[in-house]
Amino acid sequence: MHNKFVIEALDSGLAEALKNKINLKTKPQGSLGQLEDLACQIGQIQSTLEPEIRKPKMIVFAADHGIASEGVSAYPQAVTAQMVQNFVNGGAAVNVFCRQHRLDFEIVDVGVAELLSEEGIECCKVAPSTQSFLTGDAMSQAQCIQAIEVGAERVAQAAREGSNLLAFGEMGIANTASAAALMAGCLQLDVAECVGRGTGLDDQGLQHKVTVLEQALKHHQGDHSAQQWLAKVGGFEIAAMVGAMLEAAHRRMVILVDGFICSSAALVASQINPLVKQYMVFCHQSAEQAHQRLLKALGAKALLDLSLRLGEGSGAALAYPLVCSAVHFLKEMASFDSAGVSREHS
Amino acid sequence: MHNKFVIEALDSGLAEALKNKINLKTKPQGSLGQLEDLACQIGQIQSTLEPEIRKPKMIVFAADHGIASEGVSAYPQAVTAQMVQNFVNGGAAVNVFCRQHRLDFEIVDVGVAELLSEEGIECCKVAPSTQSFLTGDAMSQAQCIQAIEVGAERVAQAAREGSNLLAFGEMGIANTASAAALMAGCLQLDVAECVGRGTGLDDQGLQHKVTVLEQALKHHQGDHSAQQWLAKVGGFEIAAMVGAMLEAAHRRMVILVDGFICSSAALVASQINPLVKQYMVFCHQSAEQAHQRLLKALGAKALLDLSLRLGEGSGAALAYPLVCSAVHFLKEMASFDSAGVSREHS
Repeated sequence: MHNKFVIEALDSGLAEALKNKINLKTKPQGSLGQLEDLACQIGQIQSTLEPEIRKPKMIVFAADHGIASEGVSAYPQAVTAQMVQNFVNGGAAVNVFCRQHRLDFEIVDVGVAELLSEEGIECCKVAPSTQSFLTGDAMSQAQCIQAIEVGAERVAQAAREGSNLLAFGEMGIANTASAAALMAGCLQLDVAECVGRGTGLDDQGLQHKVTVLEQALKHHQGDHSAQQWLAKVGGFEIAAMVGAMLEAAHRRMVILVDGFICSSAALVASQINPLVKQYMVFCHQSAEQAHQRLLKALGAKALLDLSLRLGEGSGAALAYPLVCSAVHFLKEMASFDSAGVSREHS
Repeated sequence: MHNKFVIEALDSGLAEALKNKINLKTKPQGSLGQLEDLACQIGQIQSTLEPEIRKPKMIVFAADHGIASEGVSAYPQAVTAQMVQNFVNGGAAVNVFCRQHRLDFEIVDVGVAELLSEEGIECCKVAPSTQSFLTGDAMSQAQCIQAIEVGAERVAQAAREGSNLLAFGEMGIANTASAAALMAGCLQLDVAECVGRGTGLDDQGLQHKVTVLEQALKHHQGDHSAQQWLAKVGGFEIAAMVGAMLEAAHRRMVILVDGFICSSAALVASQINPLVKQYMVFCHQSAEQAHQRLLKALGAKALLDLSLRLGEGSGAALAYPLVCSAVHFLKEMASFDSAGVSREHS
């Protein structure tokens, strides 16, 4: 499985050349902060001093979760399918932001329990929902690999259509529970450190979610690989994002990582192949309390911190113009010499 | 002077109606975080449930500072005029980001020492540079009022052209020294708490800047009004921003506040008329160490925190798409009813 996704390390020599180019721009050195690091990273990913973004695309993976039956979400499971329909109709937050920034949009069914219609949806259903991972595995290893391959194939298709930047989002009622369990398993942390309110649990709901997840993690405890954890407590949409990220890095594409659930996929992908992180841009730090800790474990500093907790890829879509800004300043800003601007006192 | 800028308080009843509208959107309540507050604010500013942004414009005010002769900047004073020329030619960071986001751009000379050419520049020079405020006032009260009126008139002109959102930026070698002195004076803080490295001073340069500013503040100490402080230690471009902000709020326009220097103008404006703050969107928290404290004093949480320290309005231009996103989600997102999406478990 893993050998399929060969990922090249970025060229640190090129990073030097990019830094030199940035330091000739008409601004104090380092004064564009994180945008400078971003410009370097994208230049390295594209192996050029003149990176450009082509056919940027948002791919949202949707699936249902058996664990939803344990009452770990504030919303009923039917909302997954209803929101998929909302995505198709263009009425969700992520649609609005993708239209604003001209990101292509695709919604992929990797395992929604019940769809109203398949029109406008990429149908790649592994099964109608995972199993509850409270006392058994969410999916089989075969299903896990199938979901990973769904994600990889959607990325391969986008690449064939000329895209070199992908953002990933997700929809799946109860998937913060799955993401929390993955985080606890893969990082060997206490569940309580990995759990948040999701889309809006109250105190009692949060306590119940912790109790359910503690019981589940106790059942699954052991020294498992990231891919094993993914099958045990993950979700089809999370597995699809893992495959999508590995394939995107394999193809040297820029990967925009959204919030907590997307970051849990990034965690699994990076444990399968640490080089995948070099291709990732972490777009926002969520209000979900565990996300800050997860980003720290990934060694990431996110671009935005707006107390978002919506998922869907909405934070990635909101951060996308900053990624464009990094590419634009690198290309378009004048240099000290070309603009006739004096440098610092030596 | 102050009576000219009558500012209406925002309608808190409308805020309720806007919140209700937002809470019907297909997303968990509050899940768009700061963007929800922003959508409310802009709706209130425009007195409507359906705000829209028209002819957004960036106005950059430029001027030179007598205090530059005390060696408080890493760059020579000539850079102010050179950068103004760079703005006219479209080669600066703020130009790149304004083009990206289709923000109109205007550069106003309020007091640049020596311009190479006046082409493409709004010429409203009060004087060629302020005086050093080390042992005297930077400008007379008459000059201060003149600079405030320059800013107000540029805003009035933009409003006549149909703009309802303005971003302000600045250029002026040594103006972080002026902003720090204003902050110390208006908030009655120790200078050391208000000083940073500006565009890139080293440790020795920073210490020298602190020493110069301590000496200056000692000379000017006393119980002065914000407008008096503005004349004593401010700059023409800062005074112009003060006037621009007051006029923009008077005309119920959205005000995008950039970094440390722009925030020092926001501080002065808000001490002249506290209602002006209701019209302000604080766009980014700068790497300039005093900016965090200044934002706190203003009761503001900025949209971006990307370790920027460039000024020019660059941070405001980078945050502008987030402001658009707030307006767009309010207008375009489906409601639970229209999309047929179930709500939270009650």
